[in-house]
Amino acid sequence: MTPLFARMTVAGVGLIGGSLAAAARRAGLVGAVVGFGRSAANLALARERDLVDRTTDDPAVAAAGAELIVLAAPVGALGALAERLRPHAAPGTLLTDVGSVKGALVAALEAAWQGRGPVVGAHPLAGSEAAGAGAARADLFVGRRCILTPTERTDPTALARVRALWAGVGARVEEMAPAAHDALLARTSHLPHLLAYALVTAAAGAAVDGRAVLDYAAAGFLDTTRIAGSRGELWRDILLANAPALADALAEFRAALAHLERLVAEGAAGPLLAALEAAAAARRALDGGR
Amino acid sequence: MTPLFARMTVAGVGLIGGSLAAAARRAGLVGAVVGFGRSAANLALARERDLVDRTTDDPAVAAAGAELIVLAAPVGALGALAERLRPHAAPGTLLTDVGSVKGALVAALEAAWQGRGPVVGAHPLAGSEAAGAGAARADLFVGRRCILTPTERTDPTALARVRALWAGVGARVEEMAPAAHDALLARTSHLPHLLAYALVTAAAGAAVDGRAVLDYAAAGFLDTTRIAGSRGELWRDILLANAPALADALAEFRAALAHLERLVAEGAAGPLLAALEAAAAARRALDGGR
Repeated sequence: MTPLFARMTVAGVGLIGGSLAAAARRAGLVGAVVGFGRSAANLALARERDLVDRTTDDPAVAAAGAELIVLAAPVGALGALAERLRPHAAPGTLLTDVGSVKGALVAALEAAWQGRGPVVGAHPLAGSEAAGAGAARADLFVGRRCILTPTERTDPTALARVRALWAGVGARVEEMAPAAHDALLARTSHLPHLLAYALVTAAAGAAVDGRAVLDYAAAGFLDTTRIAGSRGELWRDILLANAPALADALAEFRAALAHLERLVAEGAAGPLLAALEAAAAARRALDGGR
Repeated sequence: MTPLFARMTVAGVGLIGGSLAAAARRAGLVGAVVGFGRSAANLALARERDLVDRTTDDPAVAAAGAELIVLAAPVGALGALAERLRPHAAPGTLLTDVGSVKGALVAALEAAWQGRGPVVGAHPLAGSEAAGAGAARADLFVGRRCILTPTERTDPTALARVRALWAGVGARVEEMAPAAHDALLARTSHLPHLLAYALVTAAAGAAVDGRAVLDYAAAGFLDTTRIAGSRGELWRDILLANAPALADALAEFRAALAHLERLVAEGAAGPLLAALEAAAAARRALDGGR
């Protein structure tokens, strides 16, 4: 069977890029995978774990001969990364990414790749606080959503090929406008990260009668703040790139919090119970559904 | 070996009460354990799972002959529960509780139990979103903190006996003033619960282009909001009982959140990265420590 792509280059062999490389190889979707990155240690780990066929830190080697380039570095670095790879990429090279923000990013990639080849924005919902080639695994995307965000400029054939790649590694692929993606992810991912970072920040410096607050963190605190252990560089980029949608999500959250706070301050036991029970039911339904 | 308590009555055989019953029996700390509660089904489950020696829904039977009574129902119910048990309790009966709030609660229990016997406030840090006798397990407290909150009125011998009980089931026991407990727990537990409930509340009703926001909840959202699946009755009581300390904790959290939000709005990439990295380091240290 002819592979979907003769050669795929993954720029950034971390949790997502490394997992895609391993999964695409295992599924026979690619003839060869080249891992491109800055960290020699991470590239060595990617080879050692057999995530990729070979690695390079040279953009010319990375881009030459690639039929598909997947940008899998932190969101803020992707525009410059595309510019660096572009001179070495053959005409028609398909460019895609796995960034957690799509609107401004896809527009920037389309501009950077203009006249070089098609661009398809993609975002597999499979991130975690784990990072690096050491955290990658070939089954990471099985059953997970992958959102493709075509624009007016997206080539339908390129879109279909990227869809086939993600479907081939087990993801549930769907399409929506970049702005819709950013509004959804602001609420389900970017806002929770910001809250977790703020919660840890507030607790980290605090003490009560000489006792460090964080010494009393139990299971609930650990769950609630787990994602605050995520890489700062990654999340700085995401928060900055999706600032407008994040601000909207924050406003909605603040309204919900202020409502609960008011019920507590007023001692409104009945309405407070109803509000908590409604939230608890909505939260439990998420466990049932997966 | 003579047990520490000839008979212990546990009022509320849920996650905490049921686990304490099972653990104390297994460790030989108690001669017999009586489970007292409202729900016949939960009491039957407690018997079936061999958490207790016998059960009753009669306060007279529950209190008569008990050397120690442990209140393990939702915080808001404990004052009335003590009043109901009091007429049937022998002079000298030791009263303790496992409530997540201590200041107002311990004062209320001391008033309710005045002239009947000693009162010792306690709080094992072992709660979760799980509930009921079905979730109880004898090893729940092993390695967990248990905070005792003596007051000026606390009898030293009674305090030492309750300490021995919790140490005997594996907890790391310490003492502090009720107000210190409430200030710490507001920050490590009550605030995170309130935030999780607010986050689910904000997301539950929201849609983007006809897509329900919660359909896009991935691992990060699930972790961050897991505790919002907790029983509303329990958390209504806790939030109301600790409202002043919770308001202080909320103010600190809001300041931390506003700072991060300002850095995002200003596009202050450097300071934002530093703030996120500091939080991430503090959060990761919590995993290393346990």
